[in-house]
This record gives sequence, structure tokens and C-alpha cells, in this order.
Amino acid sequence: MKYPNGKRLNTSQNTMQAKMGSVFSNRGMTLEDDINATNKFYLESNKAIIHKKPTPVQIVKVNYPKRSAAVITEAYFKQASTTDYNGVYRNKYIDFEAKETKNKTLFPLANVHEHQMEHMKSVTDHGGICFLIIRFSMYNETYLLEAENLFYYWREKLSGGKKSIPYSDIAKKGYLIPFHYQARIDYLATIDKLYF
Amino acid sequence: MKYPNGKRLNTSQNTMQAKMGSVFSNRGMTLEDDINATNKFYLESNKAIIHKKPTPVQIVKVNYPKRSAAVITEAYFKQASTTDYNGVYRNKYIDFEAKETKNKTLFPLANVHEHQMEHMKSVTDHGGICFLIIRFSMYNETYLLEAENLFYYWREKLSGGKKSIPYSDIAKKGYLIPFHYQARIDYLATIDKLYF
Repeated sequence: MKYPNGKRLNTSQNTMQAKMGSVFSNRGMTLEDDINATNKFYLESNKAIIHKKPTPVQIVKVNYPKRSAAVITEAYFKQASTTDYNGVYRNKYIDFEAKETKNKTLFPLANVHEHQMEHMKSVTDHGGICFLIIRFSMYNETYLLEAENLFYYWREKLSGGKKSIPYSDIAKKGYLIPFHYQARIDYLATIDKLYF
Repeated sequence: MKYPNGKRLNTSQNTMQAKMGSVFSNRGMTLEDDINATNKFYLESNKAIIHKKPTPVQIVKVNYPKRSAAVITEAYFKQASTTDYNGVYRNKYIDFEAKETKNKTLFPLANVHEHQMEHMKSVTDHGGICFLIIRFSMYNETYLLEAENLFYYWREKLSGGKKSIPYSDIAKKGYLIPFHYQARIDYLATIDKLYF
């Protein structure tokens, strides 16, 4: 695995995290929770403007009761045609998808829909910074994987190759994102090293 | 009113639009319909990757019937904390809000929420291209107004000034977007002149 700064988490950091207990450690927090907290920190510290898009929902029926808010009484989840997160950082368009897997040996490509893959390809073509954040929850490891790597494995899959990315490849080609107290999943530190 | 290219719609264009009838004219189409169609055209012609964000919904109850899709049976509309549209164009982050008004003399600032205003300010600070698309539906005129203008009137409002932008100011400081057959509201043509 590659850290952008070439270092592993040092022992004092690990100890500090352990001392913080359940509130500040990321045990039991989903990747989405961690990324939302990170984006909130970025926003409040005026580092970047990155938001999660709302869940796409097909609204079918809405009631408008008198003197109270409209209630949606029938709606369905729609498949997302883009990625979950986007925004602006250092004049650049940022776009990414976050995925968590319990698998210990591989990341299944079925986790990313074809529409999302096409979207990521287009974003890259138009000069956006595009990547995947993948958490292997059994190892509690979170990686940033540049979209180009994903395209490579997607092409392999389309030409009859395997339908997943081996964990070992992600650990080699991706960048481990260390867990921090404030910016829990400080992916922009990795982006700084890679693009600026 | 300013056209970026200094020209008004010529007569043959107007006549052509009239001939196209109800399907292709924008009569009866909402601004949102027109912008969605424009973004679809941009996407398919690989000009830009700009999407409308899904409507933010607070989901309260979901049923999971056997052998069919999950049904959301109770949900509420949430106020948007960002703008409706964003994406990437010519390596730049693009972010805008679209508003339609039936008012003939002014655009009420109440149409833009404080959160959205703060978001637009932040986007501008971080190097994104940020603007408002305003349609005066009684005139069937659609303007692009750079976010900086909006901030000016917002500050005026906060310091006790008027709570709207006069139509005449929008016609002067904004850029009229001509109606086109394919890119119905071709706002990127204006962005090209202003930023590239």
C-alpha cells in the first residue's frame, strides 16, 4: 500500500485514536458517515465545497394536508446515474463515489453501475478529478483509487476478464487514507499530493 | 439587455421556432424542462457534464414487499442547501440555480434561500463558475446573471435595502440566452464568452 507521504500511521496516532473511544473512532461508523463528517469539516474550515447528492427518488404520490407540510406517500428509489459526491476544490471539479465492502480479497465491480462508470469516464475527459473511495471494512482500511484504475479493470471485465479488483491491487495502486480526528477520511490530502 | 455576441434573435430564427410548433417551442415548457433538455444535449454531444441534483427528500418509512421494489410510504421535502445544477465544463467547475418568475418588474430575492446564497459565495471563492438562470415567463426571456450580481443585491437587502432585483437591472447586467432548437437554453455559449 502507498501512503502519499510514504509513512504509515505512527503508534502515538493509533494510541490517541484508541483513547478517544467510540465517539471519535470510526468503529461502527459507515464510510458514508465518515465522508459526510469530512466534507462538513472541509466546508466549515473553508477548504473545499463538496456535498453528497440527495438519494434519487421517483415521487409518485404527494398529499397536501391543510396547515402542515406536504407528505410524499408513494415513492421509489431510482438508480443513480452519476456518482454520489461532487464539488470544487482549488479551482478543480472533484467527483467521486464511495463504496464499502466486507469482502477480504477483492472489490466486486458489480458495486459500480455502468452509468456511473460512463459518468466517471466523461468527468475525467472534461478535466475533472475523479476517483473511488473504497473501504475494506474487515481490515478497516480506506483507499483512494484514481478512476483510471477503475476503467482498466472495467475494460478487462468487458473483454471477458474477472469481475472484480483484487484487494492486493487496490493496496498497491491505491492510496491508503489514514483516519484523522477532524477530517476523518482526509482524501484531499491525497489529492493534494497527486494533482497539485 | 446584453447578448454575449451583441445580436438579437433574428427574424428567420423566430419564424423557424414558430413553425416547429408545440413540441419544439418552449411555450408551456418549464425552465427546468428546458435546462434538463439542454444538459442532455450537452451530455450526448460530449460538450459538458452537468446534471440536476435529485430533489432532497427526508425518508421516514419504507416498506419492503416480497418480490417487488421497496416503496417509500412516508417522506418529506427538505430545503436544498446547495444549488440545483452542477458539473464540469472545459476543466472548470460549473454551479448554478435556475428560477422562473411571473413577476414583470422584479425578481424577488426570497426565491433564493440563504443557504444557497452562502453556497454560491463559497463556490465562487473556490474558483468555480457560478451563476443564476432567471426566466421572466411573462416575457419569455431567460437571463444568465453572474453570481457576483446576486451577492451585491443580497448585501443591499441585508443592510435594509430592497428585497428584489429590478427587471431592468437584470436586463442590463445579465445576458439574454436565446432559445435554440437543440440546446434550448444554451447557457454555455454565454459562459464561453465570459470565462474562456
